[in-house]
Amino acid sequence: TINADRLWDSLMEMAKIGPGVAGGNNRQTLTDEDAEGRALFQQWCEDAGCTMGLDTMGNMFARREGTDPDALPVYVGSHLDTQPTGGKYDGILGVLGGLELVRTLNDLGIKTKHPIVVSNWTNEEGTRFAPAMLSSGVFAGLHTQDWAYAREDAEGKTFGAELERIGWKGDEEVGARKMHAFFELHIEQGPILEAEGVDIGVVTHGQGLSWTQVTVTGKDAHTGSTPMPMRRNAGLGMARILEKVEEIALSHAPHAVGAAGHIDVYPNSRNVIPGQVVFTVDFRSPELAVITDMEARLKVAAEEICRDMELSVEFEKVGGFDPVDFDEGCVTAVRNAAERLGYSHRNIISGAGHDACWINRVAPTAMVMCPCVDGLSHNEAEEITKDWAKAGADVLLHAVVETAEI
Amino acid sequence: TINADRLWDSLMEMAKIGPGVAGGNNRQTLTDEDAEGRALFQQWCEDAGCTMGLDTMGNMFARREGTDPDALPVYVGSHLDTQPTGGKYDGILGVLGGLELVRTLNDLGIKTKHPIVVSNWTNEEGTRFAPAMLSSGVFAGLHTQDWAYAREDAEGKTFGAELERIGWKGDEEVGARKMHAFFELHIEQGPILEAEGVDIGVVTHGQGLSWTQVTVTGKDAHTGSTPMPMRRNAGLGMARILEKVEEIALSHAPHAVGAAGHIDVYPNSRNVIPGQVVFTVDFRSPELAVITDMEARLKVAAEEICRDMELSVEFEKVGGFDPVDFDEGCVTAVRNAAERLGYSHRNIISGAGHDACWINRVAPTAMVMCPCVDGLSHNEAEEITKDWAKAGADVLLHAVVETAEI
Ligand SMILES: NC(=O)NCCC(=O)O
Ligand SMILES: NC(=O)NCCC(=O)O
Repeated sequence: TINADRLWDSLMEMAKIGPGVAGGNNRQTLTDEDAEGRALFQQWCEDAGCTMGLDTMGNMFARREGTDPDALPVYVGSHLDTQPTGGKYDGILGVLGGLELVRTLNDLGIKTKHPIVVSNWTNEEGTRFAPAMLSSGVFAGLHTQDWAYAREDAEGKTFGAELERIGWKGDEEVGARKMHAFFELHIEQGPILEAEGVDIGVVTHGQGLSWTQVTVTGKDAHTGSTPMPMRRNAGLGMARILEKVEEIALSHAPHAVGAAGHIDVYPNSRNVIPGQVVFTVDFRSPELAVITDMEARLKVAAEEICRDMELSVEFEKVGGFDPVDFDEGCVTAVRNAAERLGYSHRNIISGAGHDACWINRVAPTAMVMCPCVDGLSHNEAEEITKDWAKAGADVLLHAVVETAEI
Repeated sequence: TINADRLWDSLMEMAKIGPGVAGGNNRQTLTDEDAEGRALFQQWCEDAGCTMGLDTMGNMFARREGTDPDALPVYVGSHLDTQPTGGKYDGILGVLGGLELVRTLNDLGIKTKHPIVVSNWTNEEGTRFAPAMLSSGVFAGLHTQDWAYAREDAEGKTFGAELERIGWKGDEEVGARKMHAFFELHIEQGPILEAEGVDIGVVTHGQGLSWTQVTVTGKDAHTGSTPMPMRRNAGLGMARILEKVEEIALSHAPHAVGAAGHIDVYPNSRNVIPGQVVFTVDFRSPELAVITDMEARLKVAAEEICRDMELSVEFEKVGGFDPVDFDEGCVTAVRNAAERLGYSHRNIISGAGHDACWINRVAPTAMVMCPCVDGLSHNEAEEITKDWAKAGADVLLHAVVETAEI
């Protein structure tokens, strides 16, 4: 089993980089803080005897050699980037849990047949640059690199330019690596494991996601002197569409969720009727047909609302992935590991998207989940216990070692 | 009558400072562009033989001497600051119309008994620093200067610090000046005059305003992995309150208007359920009782919505003024001027707030309005014709000269 104190200390050390305002982190992708976190991770990996690879999307790969020169590596990892008001564990636990696994094998003098590679995937969160899981998506061939480089943040800076700027654009061709398998440890980000007092979630499936950016356009006008019948209030149009988003998601309960997290109002002045609102609707379900239905109903509802209000509306799909079935062999390896270690476990569907969802397309993949307090994530107050982290990393270690063979 | 070409040229020259992105202006208060606009106005006033006074709120007063050393001055003016996506005439016409009046009197060699002072009031728009009409409000004793200096913009910069920074904080005590009368020329910002083909609005009353900043607080959480029943979605709470704002304003139609122009969502990330939304509700009516009723109903409705959704809600009044009755003598001077000049005219209620609304508390005051295209204002496409500008400035000239006596 792994060294829980060492894992915890590394988590706390990483959390010092890009601290948030309320105990969590703001280490958004391709910021100076991201660069600092990457440098610390690289130092730790080199101290643990690994060699670092870096591809043209900034994905990092720390390799521990195996005994068979022809064997493909077993990959583990997740992401070090965070939400603007994010937690200390979402992603980080999967990367540093992978590092801890290497450190433990070093301590025990265990050599595996397959090399082991700990990876840090660039821009998993998708806040600064949509979509989420951008670089694992390019790795898995879902997006082209040129398209990814052209993604823009709210200030109009591109992914490509920012990757160069922080100095973490590598030479290695993205997606060229072949994997024997991929494992990702992650906090649940939902309430089930904690509520049931279960140590380990064996992730069999992942929910699908659809991000639709909606642009409602009316006409900027004075809030005082414009008569009510002359108004074309894009803010009110947005409000009515948000009510429909809730209604549509609830109509599929409990097999769907929906909300808008991002809303920008223009010109955003107290005495100007909003002339334009841009917002992103996030729909998810484990069933593809449900996602498709929700997307279609959103468009119909928004078009009807906007027609009635003499507003115009446009839709752009800015992110999405289909529901995922993880690899049966890898899932079994995770379940066996939990069983062997005596941790309570249950099958679970991931509510969030993960790099593993994309890597699953190009290599046998599974995920290990551990509980988090109150199911809370994407919040600076995100919290886990050292015991939960230990159980997750122990299961990761055993599943990886079984797959990488001694 | 005034020189329409000269007035128009000055309007177009001023519009070159802080141009917008769509033909209008972004010359928000206490920015570098505001400073540049002030310097140009000062130069023009000095060229016209005026001496410039500057008070501790940055209000500018260009004085043309009268023949009677004991007579109080007749003031004219408005504001040079604009909305972030504002027009070229809202406020500017009133200031440069005042300057044109002085230039015309110079051309004609006419001396008035009372001095004439052309004023530029700081921060009329209220976008960068709420409330609107801030400095005329301090002048009229409605706010203290200390309170005004402490107003913050979205970046947390204070009015006081920014006034110092741009170098337009004067020494003269604000509000110390006594006025014989005050006249403000302004575009209507509404559709009535254009629709009726009337040249001049004789402004008898002004609508009252109430700005309530509403803060709805829920809990940041993951949009994918947080079950619908666990969500405390502040964005959805805001949407429901906006629907009520519309309903409440319409219940008093046509004697009230309501909308929210300013909406900030936190943390504003596509995959985070909004934990907080801050927005400002703008209610207006010519009847004080209607404003009071709308404010009260907003609170009741928002509290009920938030209670049902397990959100918390707070209210802060960030701006407001009661409906205004302008001075009968000054209003008559405006009407007589329009009559004498042969311009068609009608009585009108101002839908927007104006510096004149505050100055009316400390001096006899009235306003002259001219039409604007489609009633559109607080939009870069705001437009007027040279003829409309001329008619408005001619009426201003005659009303002022009648009041200042030859
Ligand atoms: N795990 C996680 O929070 N990923 C971000 C992408 C998503 O919104 O699901
Ligand atoms: N005239 C004008 O637009 N003033 C700004 C204050 C208001 O919103 O009424």
